[in-house]
Amino acid sequence: MDEVNKVTLGVVQFACSDDVGENIATASRLVRAAAAEGANIVVVQELFEGHYFCQEENPAHFDRARPLDGHPTLAAMQALAAEYGVVLPVSLFERRNQAYYNSLVMVDDRGEALGVYRKSHIPDGPGYSEKFYFNPGDTGFRVWKTRFGTIGAGICWDQWFPEAARSMALMGAEFLIYPTAIGSEPGRPDFDSMEHWRITMRGHAGANLMPVAAANRIGTEVVNGRTQTYYGSSFIAGPQGDLRASAGREGEAVLTATFDRAIMRNERAAWGLFRDRRPELYGALAGADGG
Amino acid sequence: MDEVNKVTLGVVQFACSDDVGENIATASRLVRAAAAEGANIVVVQELFEGHYFCQEENPAHFDRARPLDGHPTLAAMQALAAEYGVVLPVSLFERRNQAYYNSLVMVDDRGEALGVYRKSHIPDGPGYSEKFYFNPGDTGFRVWKTRFGTIGAGICWDQWFPEAARSMALMGAEFLIYPTAIGSEPGRPDFDSMEHWRITMRGHAGANLMPVAAANRIGTEVVNGRTQTYYGSSFIAGPQGDLRASAGREGEAVLTATFDRAIMRNERAAWGLFRDRRPELYGALAGADGG
Repeated sequence: MDEVNKVTLGVVQFACSDDVGENIATASRLVRAAAAEGANIVVVQELFEGHYFCQEENPAHFDRARPLDGHPTLAAMQALAAEYGVVLPVSLFERRNQAYYNSLVMVDDRGEALGVYRKSHIPDGPGYSEKFYFNPGDTGFRVWKTRFGTIGAGICWDQWFPEAARSMALMGAEFLIYPTAIGSEPGRPDFDSMEHWRITMRGHAGANLMPVAAANRIGTEVVNGRTQTYYGSSFIAGPQGDLRASAGREGEAVLTATFDRAIMRNERAAWGLFRDRRPELYGALAGADGG
Repeated sequence: MDEVNKVTLGVVQFACSDDVGENIATASRLVRAAAAEGANIVVVQELFEGHYFCQEENPAHFDRARPLDGHPTLAAMQALAAEYGVVLPVSLFERRNQAYYNSLVMVDDRGEALGVYRKSHIPDGPGYSEKFYFNPGDTGFRVWKTRFGTIGAGICWDQWFPEAARSMALMGAEFLIYPTAIGSEPGRPDFDSMEHWRITMRGHAGANLMPVAAANRIGTEVVNGRTQTYYGSSFIAGPQGDLRASAGREGEAVLTATFDRAIMRNERAAWGLFRDRRPELYGALAGADGG
């Protein structure tokens, strides 16, 4: 594997229709634009095949899930990754026997599927009824070695958990990426979590001394009379939690930022945070309520 | 215990001389000012008895350590806490038999010492030679119930570790406080970690949905010809990681921010982050290198 040291991380942001082919076309157009800007890894938003159906609890939406084996959207994204030589994490609604997962397949720059990660943390609240649809992921956290470094991927709600980011960092991740679908909260018109969302992930970047990128959807979607507006604001944070690239709340976006892996590796070591951990004191993390 | 729901968190910031009595006088003056602004809990910086001696490795500085039993600075701070009815976390260089700790005694609003926390994570790098002076803390993380809520305290370097913040949150903390001494890095005149430092702790606030306060020193200190400038920038973050109060890089400061514990408790529960954790997947956190 011919490793690349200076790596450009890319993030795309767009509104989804509820037509799979249309969304693949939009994603392809933006991935191509990111590749033209030099991106080596391109993060596309969560469940980009269609509307964010978890707005409601409706058995009909289980029809959206497919097995990963022979998945046509995955095949299209693999072809895209190979064509542009980019690593593409692909977010899909997976069906496997009786189980349904919110999954991500890491596709490398030759179009090979490196493996699957299944969302570990499943939210549940008005407008985000994911516990109705998804089994809690059974893969544990995963990282993948690619030509462009070792990449750890979480999916949306995972992004709020320092345990997930830290676990991937400890497993060797050099970049953390999060496909996302987040926006307004039904019944709370004045509530906005955008800055909270960013600060929490920028905190993961700062604490783990590595870039963090999130791709969120935009636009207003109506699902059986329910309405939700996604706040975009996709971003790339640097290893000190600094905002390197940032999209607006509306409008398509292609973001890129370039990082030197060797410099970041030395800074991580010299800073000493991974050296000075005290795992023997972290027992509370293994329980639900601190004992 | 007559519990208070609306609690005002206070932070003070000042330059230390190398005279213990003078520093106690300065701390007392600022704690009084914070109390006059309604503060119920006042965070004073790390090792405020004198200069930050860890700039150099010098056996003479071990003379600064004292047993906590009968510690005159602790007694002075206990009297201060009782006089103004404030909770005061007191940072001290502790000697205990052959061991030396960077310790914190939590003093309640009646002046009672509730217990000791000993800094878990000990840094080591140019200008911050703490591994020369301090045994790694043996207490584990601690939280204390007070009239003003349950308070978790870390000490400086601890503030970079998501494990510490999360552990205290899981143990019931409602507020996280961090006495600090951080500033310039010898040999790296262009390096500044101030924003990195803030973002990482604001991330803890956002991830744990609770206020985080840090008190840092200011001023330039010369220790046997070595010079270091502390960057102040003490702050109080709200439960979404938002900056509620913020001091400059220079100049004394008294910061306060008021929080409603009952509202924060409900928001923490409704947000679901503590409900949706997956401790069975957090095995990597128990090791040094992700296995």
